[in-house]
Amino acid sequence: MDIKAYMTSLGRQARKAGREISRTESGKKDTALLKIAEAIESSREMLVAENRKDLDAGRKNGLDAALLDRLALNPKAIQAMVEGLEQVAALPDPVGEIIDLSYRPSGIQVGQMRVPLGVIGIIYESRPNVTVDAAALCLKSGNACILRGGSEAIHSNQAIASCIAKGLEAADLPREIVQIVATADRAAVGELITMNHYVDVIVPRGGKGLIERVSQQATIPVIKHLHGICHVYIDDKADIDKAVRIAVNAKTQRYGVCNAMETLLAAEGIARQVLPLLAEIYRQKGVELRGCLKACSLIPGCIRATEEDWHTEYLAPILSIRVVSGIDEAMEHIHCYGSAHTDTIVTEDYARARRFLREVDSSSVMVNASTRFADGFEYGLGAEIGISTDKLHARGPVGLKGLTSLKYIVLGDGHIRQ
Amino acid sequence: MDIKAYMTSLGRQARKAGREISRTESGKKDTALLKIAEAIESSREMLVAENRKDLDAGRKNGLDAALLDRLALNPKAIQAMVEGLEQVAALPDPVGEIIDLSYRPSGIQVGQMRVPLGVIGIIYESRPNVTVDAAALCLKSGNACILRGGSEAIHSNQAIASCIAKGLEAADLPREIVQIVATADRAAVGELITMNHYVDVIVPRGGKGLIERVSQQATIPVIKHLHGICHVYIDDKADIDKAVRIAVNAKTQRYGVCNAMETLLAAEGIARQVLPLLAEIYRQKGVELRGCLKACSLIPGCIRATEEDWHTEYLAPILSIRVVSGIDEAMEHIHCYGSAHTDTIVTEDYARARRFLREVDSSSVMVNASTRFADGFEYGLGAEIGISTDKLHARGPVGLKGLTSLKYIVLGDGHIRQ
Repeated sequence: MDIKAYMTSLGRQARKAGREISRTESGKKDTALLKIAEAIESSREMLVAENRKDLDAGRKNGLDAALLDRLALNPKAIQAMVEGLEQVAALPDPVGEIIDLSYRPSGIQVGQMRVPLGVIGIIYESRPNVTVDAAALCLKSGNACILRGGSEAIHSNQAIASCIAKGLEAADLPREIVQIVATADRAAVGELITMNHYVDVIVPRGGKGLIERVSQQATIPVIKHLHGICHVYIDDKADIDKAVRIAVNAKTQRYGVCNAMETLLAAEGIARQVLPLLAEIYRQKGVELRGCLKACSLIPGCIRATEEDWHTEYLAPILSIRVVSGIDEAMEHIHCYGSAHTDTIVTEDYARARRFLREVDSSSVMVNASTRFADGFEYGLGAEIGISTDKLHARGPVGLKGLTSLKYIVLGDGHIRQ
Repeated sequence: MDIKAYMTSLGRQARKAGREISRTESGKKDTALLKIAEAIESSREMLVAENRKDLDAGRKNGLDAALLDRLALNPKAIQAMVEGLEQVAALPDPVGEIIDLSYRPSGIQVGQMRVPLGVIGIIYESRPNVTVDAAALCLKSGNACILRGGSEAIHSNQAIASCIAKGLEAADLPREIVQIVATADRAAVGELITMNHYVDVIVPRGGKGLIERVSQQATIPVIKHLHGICHVYIDDKADIDKAVRIAVNAKTQRYGVCNAMETLLAAEGIARQVLPLLAEIYRQKGVELRGCLKACSLIPGCIRATEEDWHTEYLAPILSIRVVSGIDEAMEHIHCYGSAHTDTIVTEDYARARRFLREVDSSSVMVNASTRFADGFEYGLGAEIGISTDKLHARGPVGLKGLTSLKYIVLGDGHIRQ
C-alpha cells in the first residue's frame, strides 16, 4: 500500500466533503447523527463480533487489563455511543451564528459569523467510542474529519466506520465527511499531520507520548491537552468544611483523570487545622501523602516530597502537599509547577478570590469548587472533543465552538472606502 | 555575542514582565501609553537623527526608493506614532472581561474571562512605526513582547525603544514589558521562534518570504497573513452603479495593499454591460487588464490571462478578469484560486447574498461593499496588529482581542462533583 497516495486521497476527499458539510442545514446534520445512531443500534452483534477480534488479538499481544478494558465494546459502551449521538443531535448548531453585527461610521455593517474549521484530523488510542464521539462533534460543527484510531482497535473502528457511512448515506450526505484510516501503518500518522493542504487542525487524544510526538512533528496547528497538574489552594480564610469537601472530592472522586488534584497547597494559618482532618480521610481512602517539611510535621506518616513530586501528574491515589505562607506563594507555586489546566482557591475572602481568578493563568480557574468540574458536560458544552491546555484558539474543555472559528462579514449597499 | 544566551535572557525577562502586565490595571496601562507618546514627542530630534543613520546606511547599501520611503521617520510619521498611542490608550481594555457567566444545574457558575496570551514575539521589516504600534497593542492587551525589526532600521528602532522604556518607567512599570532585540544577527530570529518556554505566539509582519520562513521554522504558534488574492464577483442581479463603484474602489483606491481586488469575476448575464464601463475607467487610471477569452472579447486591448494570473497577488495596477456563468462558478473560482482573505459579491438578490456570505470561506466575506474595508480601523477594532488568513484563533483583522484568549472561570460555594 502506498501510504502517501492513500492519505492524499483521503485528504482530497475530506476537503471536498468538508465544503459540502459546511453548508449543510442543521436539520440534515441532525438526521445524519440519528441515522448513525440507528445503524449502530441495529449492528450491535456485528460490532461486538468485530470488537472480539481486537480483544483476542490484544490478549495475544499481551495488552494489560486496563487497555483491554478501554478497548471493549460491550452493550453498555454501545448504548453510550448511541446516547452520545442523540445528545449531539440535540445541541444547538454553532455554524452560521452571527455575533456583534453593528453599523460602522462608514455605513457598512460589520459582524462575525461562526464557521467550521474545514477538515479535522483526530489521532487517538484504544477506546473505539472516540470514533463515534469525534465524528459526531465534527459533523455537527460542519467539519469533515479523518480519524486515526489505535491499531489495536482496527476491527472495531472499521465496524463503527461502516455504521457511520450507512448513517451518512441514509441522510443523503457523502460518506467522505467521516473517513477512518484503514491501515495500521504508523506512516499514516506522519502523513496526516503534515498534509497542510487538506487538513486544518489536528486533535491528538491519548497518552502524553502520543501527544508530544504529534505536536512536535505536525506542521498543521494542533489543539492538545498535555498535562493536568491541578492544584487546590486552601486559604487561611477558607471555610474548613468546604475546604475538606473540595480537597477530598478533587483528589478521590476519580484518580486517573486529568482534572483530579495532584498537589494540595495549604496556607500556614490554616494548615494545622485542616491538614490532619484531610489526612485522616485520605488515609481511609488509601491515598499516599507526600509533603513538604511543614506538611510532614502536621501529618503522621506523611513522607517527604521531592522536587520531582511538584512536577508530577500522578493520576493515582498519591497526593503532594505543601504548606505556603499565603495566596502569593500559592500562586507562585502554581505558576512554577502547574500545567495551566485547572486550579482552585478555597476562601471566604472576596479580594483574594478576585485576585486568584484574575491572576492564575490556567484554562480553568475556580473559587470554592472542585477541580473535577473542569469538563465539557459540567460546563454546559454538551460534549467535548478534549480539554485544551494551549493558549491559542480554544482553552479548557473544547466543545462544538472549539471546532469552529469566526470570519468577518460585511454588509453594504454599494459602499466604498474613502 | 552569544545569541542564544542573549535571547534566552530576553525570554526570561519577558515571561516575568508578562505576569506583571497581565494583572496591571487598565488606568496604569493607559498612563504608560500616554507617557510613551510624550517621550516620543519630546525626542523628535533624536529620533530623526537616529533614523538618518539608517537612511544613510540604506542608501549606501542600495535600498530602493520604496524601502527608503518606508524606513523614513519624518515629523508626520512621528506624529502618527503619537496619535496611534493615544488611540490605543482610548480603547476599552479587553483583559478581564467576563462573558457567558451562568448557573449550571450543579449549582456552580461557569463563564469565560478574557486574558492575555503572555509573551508575543513580533518579527517585522523596515517600517519603524511598527515598533510603536505593536508595542502599544501588546501592552494594552496585557502582554509582554519581544520585537525584532529589520536590521536596516536598527538605529531607529533602538531610539524608539529608549522612548518606550522611558514611558514604561514613568508609569512605574518594568521596561522589560517591551523588549527590542538589539542585534542585527539573523540567528536571533531563529531563537525567538523556537523559545516555546518563553514565547506564546509569533506574529510575523512583512513580505511573503519572511512570513513563509517564519511559519515553516517556528515551533511556537504563528498568527500570520500570507496572501491577499481578493475577489469582487459582480452577479447578474447586481446594480450596475454599485458594481462599478465597488470594482473601481477595490482595485484603484490603493494598489499595494493586501485587501485590494486582484481578480474581478463577472456573471455572463451582466459582463457585456459592466465590463466595457469598467474597462474605460481602468484605462484612464492606467490599470492593465488581463482577461479570460470572454472578457477579452468584451474589452478592447485586454490581454489574455494565463493560469498563473488567477493565482497572483499583483499589488500593482494590474487586474485579472474572468467571466463566469454565475454564483456557483464564482465561488468555485474563489475556492480554487483565492487566498481566503477578502471576497465580495455585488448583487441585489437576497438568496445569493445569503449563500455567498455563508459559503465563501474567507476571513472577510462582503456583500455590496469594497474589499478595501477589510481593516481593523474600519471594523471598529481601533487598531490592528495585522490581518490573519489562518483559520485557528484570530481570523481577519487582529486587534486587541486577537492578542487575548478566554479561560474558564468557575464560582462555587463548596461545590463538589457527584
